[in-house]
Amino acid sequence: MLTHKEILELRKQFIGPSFSISYREPLHILRAEGQYLFDDHGNRYLDAVNNISHVGHCHPRVIAAAEKQARLLNTNARYLHDSIVHYAQDLTGTFPDGLDVCYFTNSGSESNDLALRMARLFTGSRESIVLNGAYHGHTAALIEISPYKFDGPAGAGAPEYVHVIPMPDPYRGRFRGNDQETSTQYAGLIQDAIENIKNNGKQVALFIAEAIMGCGGQVIFPQSFLQQAFELVKKASGICIADEVQIGFGRVGTHFWGFETCGAIPDIVTVGKSMGNGHPLSAVITRKEIANAFDNGMEYFNSFGGNPVSCTIGQAVLDVVRDEHLQENALEVGSYLLDLLKEVKKKHPIIGDVRGQGLFLGVELIKDHDDLIPAGDDADLTVNMMKDEGILLSSDGPDHNVLKIKPPLVFTKDNALELAETLDKVLNQDNFRID
Amino acid sequence: MLTHKEILELRKQFIGPSFSISYREPLHILRAEGQYLFDDHGNRYLDAVNNISHVGHCHPRVIAAAEKQARLLNTNARYLHDSIVHYAQDLTGTFPDGLDVCYFTNSGSESNDLALRMARLFTGSRESIVLNGAYHGHTAALIEISPYKFDGPAGAGAPEYVHVIPMPDPYRGRFRGNDQETSTQYAGLIQDAIENIKNNGKQVALFIAEAIMGCGGQVIFPQSFLQQAFELVKKASGICIADEVQIGFGRVGTHFWGFETCGAIPDIVTVGKSMGNGHPLSAVITRKEIANAFDNGMEYFNSFGGNPVSCTIGQAVLDVVRDEHLQENALEVGSYLLDLLKEVKKKHPIIGDVRGQGLFLGVELIKDHDDLIPAGDDADLTVNMMKDEGILLSSDGPDHNVLKIKPPLVFTKDNALELAETLDKVLNQDNFRID
Repeated sequence: MLTHKEILELRKQFIGPSFSISYREPLHILRAEGQYLFDDHGNRYLDAVNNISHVGHCHPRVIAAAEKQARLLNTNARYLHDSIVHYAQDLTGTFPDGLDVCYFTNSGSESNDLALRMARLFTGSRESIVLNGAYHGHTAALIEISPYKFDGPAGAGAPEYVHVIPMPDPYRGRFRGNDQETSTQYAGLIQDAIENIKNNGKQVALFIAEAIMGCGGQVIFPQSFLQQAFELVKKASGICIADEVQIGFGRVGTHFWGFETCGAIPDIVTVGKSMGNGHPLSAVITRKEIANAFDNGMEYFNSFGGNPVSCTIGQAVLDVVRDEHLQENALEVGSYLLDLLKEVKKKHPIIGDVRGQGLFLGVELIKDHDDLIPAGDDADLTVNMMKDEGILLSSDGPDHNVLKIKPPLVFTKDNALELAETLDKVLNQDNFRID
Repeated sequence: MLTHKEILELRKQFIGPSFSISYREPLHILRAEGQYLFDDHGNRYLDAVNNISHVGHCHPRVIAAAEKQARLLNTNARYLHDSIVHYAQDLTGTFPDGLDVCYFTNSGSESNDLALRMARLFTGSRESIVLNGAYHGHTAALIEISPYKFDGPAGAGAPEYVHVIPMPDPYRGRFRGNDQETSTQYAGLIQDAIENIKNNGKQVALFIAEAIMGCGGQVIFPQSFLQQAFELVKKASGICIADEVQIGFGRVGTHFWGFETCGAIPDIVTVGKSMGNGHPLSAVITRKEIANAFDNGMEYFNSFGGNPVSCTIGQAVLDVVRDEHLQENALEVGSYLLDLLKEVKKKHPIIGDVRGQGLFLGVELIKDHDDLIPAGDDADLTVNMMKDEGILLSSDGPDHNVLKIKPPLVFTKDNALELAETLDKVLNQDNFRID
């Protein structure tokens, strides 16, 4: 086994430097189980951040299904196989009627990139409406529609065809609060963008959004914003894309998909991350009309997408989510944790806001309560101190001042209590006193 | 188990129609081993087409390595782990000095898209030189630099920033033959493109090419073309990208990488497909200078890229290629098969050309020997008849008239003989007589 120093030196030598490592003192993790990670000293960490390990790290049922299929067959989807159609049928069954057609891919980025191609082809346009702070993936085309990237460090700014709407953030957005009026105000900005596009003699291609913004900082929209926004974009013949890569598969608790919590019906849904519990698996789900338009003679082929091992793993994850009632657990434990965090907030003025749904929660740290000055450095320090206490979190948002909580869905109430108590303890340090 | 009809109906209902299925009567494959696939009737097929299953289908050593790691840990690359640095060190060791830095991704498309981003950033330009007939992946940005797609059915043509060079095809290209003069003639077209870009006041960003064209129809370039082309592009401060997704990891026999057969040194290499023997695994390898320029403040993160299971699988594939001497086998069996196919060509005027290197071979079918009219329909018929005889091939190339041979590298001389004899038998049918 290599030492930390050796691994870091080899990474420096052989791995692209743009891959960042978590924590000031990185962790050398050797094994994992459920919601726990174990490092090279045998220390146990409570994992409150790895949403990819959706049904728990190293879930035996998922691993067993993968092994069985890997020993039999793993070819591309150009041959007939039961696994792809069973899984596609089961997966589409979790969506509202009409979202019936699947494309299997290998990452959320591949899915969002494909969704982009579909929407552009269907509308004959590239004009895209996006939310400020949003991240939709790392391909060249996705960086161009991700303000998180193009307005972040070394970003090139928004291309001409991209129209950025202020983040509909009830806490620190242009309009504040969670009522109908705020929703309508933000929806008005969508309408402005649509009209702006029209006035330039163009057609809106798409509006893409996560129903709860992930990299944007665990932002829950004013209640009817997304529904109104989708209706306006559809009325203008644009395509509405729900990016469920971070939040899908029961994480939000009350529903299986994030967009359902908003009463919004997308034309295209993209899923990934949690879908394969760590296996590179993702998909695009859309309506027949859009799928048929995309079937214009140019084949879409994906070397690994829809292969029997990937589909078998996806099926096992779906089965486990249902059989272990993980959506229900996300609701119960998530609600409990949210209440606990609200209590912690009362004791610590550095906490400006606590928010989220199910097991997708955020704790926003601020320097003061008048101007809501973001406390990004404190968030970073908190994440590192929590790690030293054995609990893994991350920070994100445009100002990197939001603690992200998105654990495997097997997280328990005891885990929630431990997290809240530890956060309380860490924030009791002198460092975090604000005026 | 579902019937063919049931699977086809469910695919029609739930799977995107742009995924095509192989063969007029599709195969329902249930299991695989080495170079053999077995269908729902227990029929055995000799697999001469699945290059992804590089070390043989369901290789026990690769599966065992994957299982062992999957039971321990599968998290993202933000923690320290031995597997990623060991694998990166071993993988970069197979490249010429200077190609030292890895980025792990989940598909050849993700790799080429990332390579594109790097080259654009490094040069501050998008001006791209590509070969006609080339395919580099399915993302929005890659479709725009893939003539196979943008000039194929429903293609939108070349964007302004893409400069297409005629395919350097010694058999039916603008210049014919395999000598120094032909190489220089094609290289001259690269120089023309560079000057054209300069005359428009722009800078060349990149030239991307496979050393042997895959979708282009198993085209081997005139001997020094690629070397000359890379030199010219580098002289103009452009980035040379070698797309090794289809041909890498010892397949070409004489060398581990295709570009090595041409004496050409790329700035960036992209690999995929065979890298994980079916597991979604791919990479970009480049020089430190380019990696450092790409590390400009904008993070590149990939959810699954470089995770311990993916790296462990990649390492196992690399180990098996070496321990089972599969590069040497590709050379020996490939050369033997090429000779056999040349004998078959003598008997069948429908075969216009037989070519390739190692176990990446092509048989081009034509309607006549004067005008080289492509026999795409005959290639399709041949592929289907070969399938009925128990041997799996595909057809490709701009005219779909090239039989592609790219089997798992465990292919034996007996397999080669069976393939050649069966092709001879199939072409003996009346259907294939040409004038």
